[in-house]
Amino acid sequence: MTLDREICAALDRDDPLAAFREEFEIPDGLIYLDGNSLGALPRAVKRRLADVVTQEWGAGLIRSWNTAHWIDLPQRVGAAIAGLIGARPDEVVVADSTSVNLFKLATAALGLRPGRRVIVTEPGNFPTDLYILQGIQRLLNDRVELRVVAPEHLAGAIDGDTALLLLTQVHYRTGRVHDMMALTRRAHEVGALALWDLSHSAGAIDVDLNAAGADLAVGCGYKYLNGGPGAPAFLFVAQRHQAQAQSPLSGWMGHAAPFAFSDDYLPAPDIRRMLCGTPAILGLAALEIGVGIMARADHRQLRRKSMALGDLFIRLVEQECPGQFTLQSPRDAAARGSQVSLGHPEGYAIMQALIARGVIGDFRAPDTMRFGFTPLYVRHSDVYDAVAHLKDIMDSGAWQDAAHQARGAVT
Amino acid sequence: MTLDREICAALDRDDPLAAFREEFEIPDGLIYLDGNSLGALPRAVKRRLADVVTQEWGAGLIRSWNTAHWIDLPQRVGAAIAGLIGARPDEVVVADSTSVNLFKLATAALGLRPGRRVIVTEPGNFPTDLYILQGIQRLLNDRVELRVVAPEHLAGAIDGDTALLLLTQVHYRTGRVHDMMALTRRAHEVGALALWDLSHSAGAIDVDLNAAGADLAVGCGYKYLNGGPGAPAFLFVAQRHQAQAQSPLSGWMGHAAPFAFSDDYLPAPDIRRMLCGTPAILGLAALEIGVGIMARADHRQLRRKSMALGDLFIRLVEQECPGQFTLQSPRDAAARGSQVSLGHPEGYAIMQALIARGVIGDFRAPDTMRFGFTPLYVRHSDVYDAVAHLKDIMDSGAWQDAAHQARGAVT
Repeated sequence: MTLDREICAALDRDDPLAAFREEFEIPDGLIYLDGNSLGALPRAVKRRLADVVTQEWGAGLIRSWNTAHWIDLPQRVGAAIAGLIGARPDEVVVADSTSVNLFKLATAALGLRPGRRVIVTEPGNFPTDLYILQGIQRLLNDRVELRVVAPEHLAGAIDGDTALLLLTQVHYRTGRVHDMMALTRRAHEVGALALWDLSHSAGAIDVDLNAAGADLAVGCGYKYLNGGPGAPAFLFVAQRHQAQAQSPLSGWMGHAAPFAFSDDYLPAPDIRRMLCGTPAILGLAALEIGVGIMARADHRQLRRKSMALGDLFIRLVEQECPGQFTLQSPRDAAARGSQVSLGHPEGYAIMQALIARGVIGDFRAPDTMRFGFTPLYVRHSDVYDAVAHLKDIMDSGAWQDAAHQARGAVT
Repeated sequence: MTLDREICAALDRDDPLAAFREEFEIPDGLIYLDGNSLGALPRAVKRRLADVVTQEWGAGLIRSWNTAHWIDLPQRVGAAIAGLIGARPDEVVVADSTSVNLFKLATAALGLRPGRRVIVTEPGNFPTDLYILQGIQRLLNDRVELRVVAPEHLAGAIDGDTALLLLTQVHYRTGRVHDMMALTRRAHEVGALALWDLSHSAGAIDVDLNAAGADLAVGCGYKYLNGGPGAPAFLFVAQRHQAQAQSPLSGWMGHAAPFAFSDDYLPAPDIRRMLCGTPAILGLAALEIGVGIMARADHRQLRRKSMALGDLFIRLVEQECPGQFTLQSPRDAAARGSQVSLGHPEGYAIMQALIARGVIGDFRAPDTMRFGFTPLYVRHSDVYDAVAHLKDIMDSGAWQDAAHQARGAVT
């Protein structure tokens, strides 16, 4: 069966999540397929931030730490995120950036497994995970060994010397999904811990940290959770580890009694021990709106639509542009996050041509065009229109202009 | 001469900084003396944040990292702060929290002084500095020794084993100002580095990092810089150290080529190497407004008014409430930041009574009432009115109601 726009429009009419699109501000005529890099603006953020600024900061001033419950925001938004990732409300807190949280939890994991020095991870995934581990290794030198192994050799590389397995669940470039359950079990078999980076998972696929037995996790607030540019990140510590896990970033907000101003650090008895400095209230307030929308959507419907949009994109690309792109993402939707990546040697120029027409994806060198399908606001007809633009660009050679300009810019 | 309200009103009429008050939103009838804890709202933040949300995030989406220059914000706001603290524009960057930045720079300092393990600091100042050092010590154990000595013994405690002197320049509780010039010189005499926490200095007193030869510094965005609740913090690395100083928090935004997505961390050649995760755009945009206002004010006028307001407060308290409070701040304005602290065993209840009347200061256990005088928006007549309320509360015994309620709340 040939897929056409009418079929896609019909799928939109039957979409149980269709109404959610109205909660976001998507510019007219724009097809936004980059929610995996920066989620769209929830309309309610505008009013909420205006209130935070005018009422809470402007009128309430310092009193708002209590009266507007600013002090509780890291835990309150954390509890809301917990519901999206299979965690208990008291196991998640919002703080700092994903990178900073990786540092806290990876070093905490070393403390939980004294005598073990190996951290196992994979190459080629989003590099902040590797960079942070390299920073820890440089700081702790002979107390840490990084074992960076290809995904297919991960299970075999985890052994009795392993303190921690650290993986990004959904690959930022290909969208490939790791088997969190199996790899966590493998880590536990040898007494190691598992730390999962959910930056491309939370809000994109079903995540059930506690069902998988995960020990630690971090994730991003500005992608599928729609928390805004540079939104604060979140972290998860399984309840069973909370009394022992210690953050090396022992700032005052992680203290058991931050307002006692005592000279000696005593970590909070709960997940708050993973806080460090003063919480970023503007970012937290925006993130709370994004997370709140996601929390109202049915998880299964979200995942079903996410897979359907990716499948639709792949079928349409193969129907309209046969043989022109390599599929860099898993074809099996169950093994793929909420994105599809296409390979093409002129991918940069082709993506520039798409962006010039209002189809926003992104490009990752050397040859990857990424298209994100966020089920809350991307329509089946958007996917159709995006591929129609792609076909037109390829058929007309319009991308060559962009390629020419790009080369000019480089020289 | 007896000070009265007319004299204070006359001082306001002659105040060259008086017009700056109009740039802030101060609720009618409120006397806000807590800008040292959370600065007031600059009116321009409302429109700026609305633009960032609606135009840059909502309409620009991912493109705004380039088109709205989000990616440059940490350096751009850093350069603006540099002008307030005697630094070069390329020596300051805005990132993370004060606590996180302390961690980065204290560990970087250890790397700059291999073979030395002592960090000298003082007890009883704002505790996140101590907490962060304790976290570093726990992480690096025998590679770090903390030498926590009373202020009068600091100079003698700095010796050839000292890698770093870390001090908060203005004491959060008393407002006492350290001699940055002399203590930095003392550190350098024995080959140690000096890291200054400017949280209560930047925007409050004259700071000239390069004149003092300071090596490293951090500071807070939400106090005198009026960046909003939980605003991102800043850090300074003297140009001569930038090629060697390495942050252990080596996240992707500190990489020399963050968008190359290579597996190996290579620090940026400049101050950007101290960045870690994705910058918090909402917080940065608000902070830029606050810093911009401060940058337009004359430094000498700011400091002169700050000292005058503190002197006025002390004189009025001694005139109106003789013998009722102990002065916990230096009487000499030159040795005092932009705050005055009064001691009273019932300080908590008295402050509650003041707050109930719209005079906002704060309380630090066991007996310190803090009053901050931010020269951009506090008037001489505000100081007069605040002390009039204080006198009335003391004369009428109104604070005893608050004391009674407070005790009831505790039990």
